[in-house]
Amino acid sequence: PRKKTQDPPIEHELFVTLEEVSNGTTKKMKISRKVLNPDGRTTRVEDKVLTIDIKPGWKQGTKITFPREGDQSPSTIPADIIFIIKDKPHQTFRREGADLIYNAKITLKEALCGTTINVPTLDPSRVRKLQLNDVIKPTTEKRLSGDGLPNTKQPSTRGDIIVKFDIKFPDTLSKEQKEVIGSTLRN
Amino acid sequence: PRKKTQDPPIEHELFVTLEEVSNGTTKKMKISRKVLNPDGRTTRVEDKVLTIDIKPGWKQGTKITFPREGDQSPSTIPADIIFIIKDKPHQTFRREGADLIYNAKITLKEALCGTTINVPTLDPSRVRKLQLNDVIKPTTEKRLSGDGLPNTKQPSTRGDIIVKFDIKFPDTLSKEQKEVIGSTLRN
Repeated sequence: PRKKTQDPPIEHELFVTLEEVSNGTTKKMKISRKVLNPDGRTTRVEDKVLTIDIKPGWKQGTKITFPREGDQSPSTIPADIIFIIKDKPHQTFRREGADLIYNAKITLKEALCGTTINVPTLDPSRVRKLQLNDVIKPTTEKRLSGDGLPNTKQPSTRGDIIVKFDIKFPDTLSKEQKEVIGSTLRN
Repeated sequence: PRKKTQDPPIEHELFVTLEEVSNGTTKKMKISRKVLNPDGRTTRVEDKVLTIDIKPGWKQGTKITFPREGDQSPSTIPADIIFIIKDKPHQTFRREGADLIYNAKITLKEALCGTTINVPTLDPSRVRKLQLNDVIKPTTEKRLSGDGLPNTKQPSTRGDIIVKFDIKFPDTLSKEQKEVIGSTLRN
């Protein structure tokens, strides 16, 4: 008999939320495939559910392969079905390794004079207070340790939330405001 | 006779300065190649100078092809020699299309209270004064028209210099400075 060749792999994107990556989850994906009838020549279409166990901390690009779950045919080896993890865009965070990046919007006054901000976490019931006393520059970053994503190699430990700052400047200043600021700032 | 196949093209990067792109220039590139002797079988090595006429405004990635200037051999067609334009990093500008991006460093005081800055151009004898009266935000951009690179399709016209601002915040502020600023800025 002729040597059978395998159909090329079929890739699907599997979108996950950061919350799902944080806790781990199980996804059930329904596929439709042609299955050989007992006669070995004709096929029928069958649905099948593939179960994917998303482990805490899994990175974008992680591939999960289900060998030979593609269409069956008399003459070929069914394709492998591959799911590739992709991040659903998140409203509040984006991930960088095991860290979560959070952009805090503060005003120039708050950046210069200090303020306290509430930093959300992936757990809606948990908010971290961050007190800002020093001058916040556009390049300043603050780390809130332990509220990031699980480290894949050691899921009991987590990355950090890295707070970056988006400083809103006033649109205009009056002549008086300029004079006051100009006289107190050295250069 | 057997059909000759051509050797794959030989690519070289050709680095140009923004000044060279601004004015156009001529580059002479020396290559060494094997050349067939009159017997049609043996070869000798010869140097050759290829002249490249860099036109004003040429973009990165522009390719200049010298057909069949590669090694000669009895059995193949010499390779094409291709030069690919690359920008030498410039100390002051980077280009974006026909525009030149310039990062002006100003202090927070200057950003809020106003200042005048000198913006260099590619012509060392020419500096443009830019008066800043309005509040400069981290996202503010100012355009100085006509001092960019030539437009390739119409080299008599030029792009702009786009001034972006890198605002240096004070490292620290005293309690008094915070109070003064806090009392004059609304929020």
